[in-house]
Amino acid sequence: MSNQEIPYKIYLTESEMPTTWYNVRADMKNKPAPLLNPGTLQPMTAEELSGVFCDELVKQELDNETRHYPIPQEILDFYKMYRPSPLVRAYCLEKKLGTPAKIYYKFEGNNTSGSHKLNSAIAQAYYAKKQGLKGVTTETGAGQWGTALSMACSYFELDCKVFMVKVSYEQKPFRREVMRTYGASVTPSPSMETEVGRRILAAHPGTTGSLGCAISEAVEVAVSNPGYRYVLGSVLNQVLLHQSVIGLETKAALDKYGIKPDMIIGCAGGGSNLGGLIAPFMGEKLRGEADYQIIAVEPASCPSFTRGKYAYDFCDTGMVCPLAKMYTLGSDFIPAPNHAGGLRYHGMSSILSQLYDDGYMEARSVTQTKVFEAAEQFARVEGILPAPESAHAIRVAIDEAMKCKETGEEKTIVFGLTGTGYFDMVAYEKFHDGLMTDYIPTDEELAVYAAKLPKVE
Amino acid sequence: MSNQEIPYKIYLTESEMPTTWYNVRADMKNKPAPLLNPGTLQPMTAEELSGVFCDELVKQELDNETRHYPIPQEILDFYKMYRPSPLVRAYCLEKKLGTPAKIYYKFEGNNTSGSHKLNSAIAQAYYAKKQGLKGVTTETGAGQWGTALSMACSYFELDCKVFMVKVSYEQKPFRREVMRTYGASVTPSPSMETEVGRRILAAHPGTTGSLGCAISEAVEVAVSNPGYRYVLGSVLNQVLLHQSVIGLETKAALDKYGIKPDMIIGCAGGGSNLGGLIAPFMGEKLRGEADYQIIAVEPASCPSFTRGKYAYDFCDTGMVCPLAKMYTLGSDFIPAPNHAGGLRYHGMSSILSQLYDDGYMEARSVTQTKVFEAAEQFARVEGILPAPESAHAIRVAIDEAMKCKETGEEKTIVFGLTGTGYFDMVAYEKFHDGLMTDYIPTDEELAVYAAKLPKVE
Repeated sequence: MSNQEIPYKIYLTESEMPTTWYNVRADMKNKPAPLLNPGTLQPMTAEELSGVFCDELVKQELDNETRHYPIPQEILDFYKMYRPSPLVRAYCLEKKLGTPAKIYYKFEGNNTSGSHKLNSAIAQAYYAKKQGLKGVTTETGAGQWGTALSMACSYFELDCKVFMVKVSYEQKPFRREVMRTYGASVTPSPSMETEVGRRILAAHPGTTGSLGCAISEAVEVAVSNPGYRYVLGSVLNQVLLHQSVIGLETKAALDKYGIKPDMIIGCAGGGSNLGGLIAPFMGEKLRGEADYQIIAVEPASCPSFTRGKYAYDFCDTGMVCPLAKMYTLGSDFIPAPNHAGGLRYHGMSSILSQLYDDGYMEARSVTQTKVFEAAEQFARVEGILPAPESAHAIRVAIDEAMKCKETGEEKTIVFGLTGTGYFDMVAYEKFHDGLMTDYIPTDEELAVYAAKLPKVE
Repeated sequence: MSNQEIPYKIYLTESEMPTTWYNVRADMKNKPAPLLNPGTLQPMTAEELSGVFCDELVKQELDNETRHYPIPQEILDFYKMYRPSPLVRAYCLEKKLGTPAKIYYKFEGNNTSGSHKLNSAIAQAYYAKKQGLKGVTTETGAGQWGTALSMACSYFELDCKVFMVKVSYEQKPFRREVMRTYGASVTPSPSMETEVGRRILAAHPGTTGSLGCAISEAVEVAVSNPGYRYVLGSVLNQVLLHQSVIGLETKAALDKYGIKPDMIIGCAGGGSNLGGLIAPFMGEKLRGEADYQIIAVEPASCPSFTRGKYAYDFCDTGMVCPLAKMYTLGSDFIPAPNHAGGLRYHGMSSILSQLYDDGYMEARSVTQTKVFEAAEQFARVEGILPAPESAHAIRVAIDEAMKCKETGEEKTIVFGLTGTGYFDMVAYEKFHDGLMTDYIPTDEELAVYAAKLPKVE
């Protein structure tokens, strides 16, 4: 099909929007390893999980067989407020690069949460409401997940309690105010409101908090208050299921114009965006119906795929959550300060870890200054100011497009643009002022954390 | 047409997008009053204006006759990157209010500049490039216009010099960094870079600047540097012409579904958004083909339509620009600190002033706390976090929808949602903390400024 016939932005109509989520686990021969009870080292049962998570979400978490989940009408209605998201043909970027490659990106930033997180937040809030719960608790670091969950909870009139890592709470007052606008209560973590918070504050009075501590506080409040459950924005199987809406829309938009991508690129932190984007393409690959080159991009400062171990590990620093088998740097690993807040998690979704281990996808790590160079180049020609997380995918998309320029190949590249960078201007400022540094952990450093992985076999 | 058939969001296809701008002046019996040379009090000639503005924009500024202007292909291509903007049916808001009214809003915030300003910025940058200029200068207060212009200039590789009111420069470092990302140079005003800046700094060493001063600096740099011109983001006839794309898309989207609005509501500062939104509807009204209730909404703290005089006045505090006939509070009028940065201008577009004076539209003023109540209510059910400016229109749309609830009338209400509030969280925070106050100037105060209006007859 000639370029002229493909619009700058492909929008599906409401009737073309997906009405089911796709569960990639159904097509995996090697299923992702189950969550383990940290005490017994036995697979977590539905009953054990249901004290922490909503019943329906527990079912989704454990279900490796059902291929398609109908999306409930209430969630479809909410999706219609901000979806379909556009699949954009990057004509201006292609022209600027002078590449014969055809570049598309799926843009998930056009909603107030500023990212794809809303796709799962609204689903999790819906199931909590349906179960008759009063509210949910969660943690947030950079604040995108907390914002998305606040929006979802205000829509269903659920109480929403967010533990925000103290350093972010203080440095990102705007994010906090967006959450308050949506009626959420936002508490800096560690706090005096929980047992674990008080314990940590007593031991480390000046601490600025960590995601691991905030998770522990949120879980404690959920399990000790009747009518509350804990919700999580990435890593889990259920989250990847909901995020499959990204990939399903992308595929429908491509199919509408008869386009078959050669490669699909996404940034990967916990894996929810990447897992969602690639889901239906991976399904075809697993079933042997088609082949695609699939690339996960992670920061060189937090290289769980490219330099981590595939092993059981704790999901949180506090070691209160179940063990998950994943590519991990160790639950104690704290990446050097880098600005891609959403890509600092020490481990990777169990689903993606298994797929990577089985050779169905590859991974690349990129340094921060190169990522911001790509972000700025993209912003100037495509208009959109990308989140630093998303810019990891832009970096590799541009690199691949430049390879095509050398070889003359007209590859079709699709990448995920997960969100906008409005709340990341401190990082952009450092980049503009030449104050941004790159950090790559040494093998020795990584070995220290790897040695502390729990012994499970 | 039944509700079911109308989607949540109406997107035009590329082939349905407008290819011409509509010049409402062509249909006005009473044309807007001309700009006057402040020295001679004679209408400004094209020659006089061309030292400050690009030639093509001067032509557009003075042209009261040409009804349709073809949009150049380069601008159409850029529009396709972020337009069409969606016309959204506010099903969730209607449900929440329990109103029989049908509410639609045209959302202009889904681009990185976060507002409608980009529609004119790209046009002005294009004409500057076409004329072979090196760059443009402008001023910015809250930063939305500066951001939009930076994006437009980076696209056409034009130099962009922004004078940013010093207090905003210091309080809104994020906005400044967005502009730098797009390659603009941003200077806090008053600065030592201009004659007028040095004079003001000598007289008032501690000043935090004003929009009037920033305009004077930007104009000085434009007229004293070969290859540079000055550009402005609102008030002028040319800007309203470019912004007609908002109304044309809105009308095409409504026509596509056979919807005829009863009322059209927009916030009004300098008037560019409102003038653009209502343009084609006003055209039908002027030609006697249809009738619509058209409502301008302004802050009670800066009530140029509802409490100003219709008279010739200076456009800037420094009194270096031409005189314009407009509804004005006096060029010295400084509204009490309120957070709708884009609605603090002392005067109103000459086109809208004439239409208002001729009775073709009405105006309402609303207080700030009521505006933020509406903003929060809207955000919680419709997802989008509105800019405080845009929330003025939401306030009146909700008020009108509640009147329909009382009377049972099924009116169709269309309002303009000009942008997002990501950079206005300080104001939201004040509102959440109960620290926001309302201010309404007294008649005596307004009389002081009105008495200083220049004597022109």
